[in-house]
Amino acid sequence: MSDVRVQNFTISLDGFGTGAGQAADAPFGHAGERLHEWMFATRFWHEMGGARGGSLGADHAFAAMHGTGIGAEIMGAGKFGPPGWQDDLDYKGAWGPNPPFHTPVFVLTHRPRPSIEMEGGTTFHFLDASPAEALNAAREAAGGQDIRLGGGPSVVRDFLIEGLVDHMHVVQVPLLLGRGVRLWDGLESLEEAYDIEAVSTPSGVTHLTFTAKRR
Amino acid sequence: MSDVRVQNFTISLDGFGTGAGQAADAPFGHAGERLHEWMFATRFWHEMGGARGGSLGADHAFAAMHGTGIGAEIMGAGKFGPPGWQDDLDYKGAWGPNPPFHTPVFVLTHRPRPSIEMEGGTTFHFLDASPAEALNAAREAAGGQDIRLGGGPSVVRDFLIEGLVDHMHVVQVPLLLGRGVRLWDGLESLEEAYDIEAVSTPSGVTHLTFTAKRR
Repeated sequence: MSDVRVQNFTISLDGFGTGAGQAADAPFGHAGERLHEWMFATRFWHEMGGARGGSLGADHAFAAMHGTGIGAEIMGAGKFGPPGWQDDLDYKGAWGPNPPFHTPVFVLTHRPRPSIEMEGGTTFHFLDASPAEALNAAREAAGGQDIRLGGGPSVVRDFLIEGLVDHMHVVQVPLLLGRGVRLWDGLESLEEAYDIEAVSTPSGVTHLTFTAKRR
Repeated sequence: MSDVRVQNFTISLDGFGTGAGQAADAPFGHAGERLHEWMFATRFWHEMGGARGGSLGADHAFAAMHGTGIGAEIMGAGKFGPPGWQDDLDYKGAWGPNPPFHTPVFVLTHRPRPSIEMEGGTTFHFLDASPAEALNAAREAAGGQDIRLGGGPSVVRDFLIEGLVDHMHVVQVPLLLGRGVRLWDGLESLEEAYDIEAVSTPSGVTHLTFTAKRR
C-alpha cells in the first residue's frame, strides 16, 4: 500500500502555515516568501527553476524528498488559487502552463469542474470529497506510488485528524506571523500516533519528521 | 545594567507553556510532567534534588544556566500556586519550605500580601504592578545580577510585548497539548528584535535561544 506523505510543509514558530490576506500576488498572505527562504537556498529549488547552484546540505536533503516516489498530489482549494478562483472558469492554477507536480493533482473544492491537462504531466482533477474519498481517488491514479498531501494547513489538519497521514515533514522557521492559518489546532496527543524527530540546521530552521507508528 | 532572562521555558509543539486545568496536584494542568521530562533527565535537575547522576549533554548545559548570575525572579500568580491560592492567607507557594530560587522572588498578583521569607535565601514579595514596575523592584533587589522571568506563559508574553526581555531560552517538546495557555499569541514579528538560534538535541527537544538585538 502506498503512503500518504507531507513534504516541505513550512510553518512559523507560532504554527502558521500561511499568513493572513491570501491573494493572487500573495499566496501565503502577509507571510510573503519569508516562510520558504530556507528552501530557495537549496539545490532542489534551483534545479526546479532550471538554474544551477544552491546548497547541498541538510535543508536540500529534506527538500529533495518532495517528488521522490510520488504518484499523485492532493491539495486544498486555497493552494490551487487565490480566494474566488472558482468564479473564473478559465483559471488553471497558480503555477503557469507547466506546474511543478508532473502527476495527477486532486484539488479539493466544493465547486468541482472538469479536469485540466497541463504540460509536463500534471493533470488537475477537482473533487468535492471527504479526505478518505479523495485519498481513494488519488491512490487509484498514483499507480502504486505515494500520495503527497500538498496543503494548505487546514487540509493537512483534516487528514491528520482522520489518521490518514503516514509521513509528515514539517519545517519550522524562526518567524512569528501572529495571524493566518495554524497547522496544529485541534491535534491534541498527535504524538501518540507518530515517532517524531527534530533536526535543526545551520540555516536556522528545524525539520520535524513524523512517522506513523502503526505500520 | 543587568539582563532580563527567560530560562528553561518549555512549550509543546503547538506552543502551550501550560496545559488546561491547573490545580494544586497539577501545576501544568493536563500536561502533567510531560513538558519537563527533558529536564528531569539532566544532572542539573538531579543536583537540584540532592541526587547524583543525570546527563551532562546539551540539555544539561542549557538547563544549568537557570540560576547562573541570577539575583531575583519575577513570576506570575499562576506559577506561585493553583487557582484560588490568594484566598489562603497561609499559602507559601508550591515548593515547600526551601524553594529552589534562593533569591528574592516577585510574584505578580492583583491581591498582594506581606512578604514571606523562606529557607535557603528565597523571599517572596507580592506586587500588583506593571511589567516595568515589577522589573524596577526586581532590579533593585538583584544587586546588579540578572533577573529571571520565571513564567507562566502570559507573564513572559507581557514582558516580550513591552520589549523588556534580553535573553530567552525556550524548549520545544514534541507533544501536542491542544489546550492551555499559549506562549506565542500576539507576538507577530518578534523575530525582528532578536537573534534566534535553534538546536535540536538527541532527547528530541529543540532549544530556541533569543538574544535581543539592541544591545
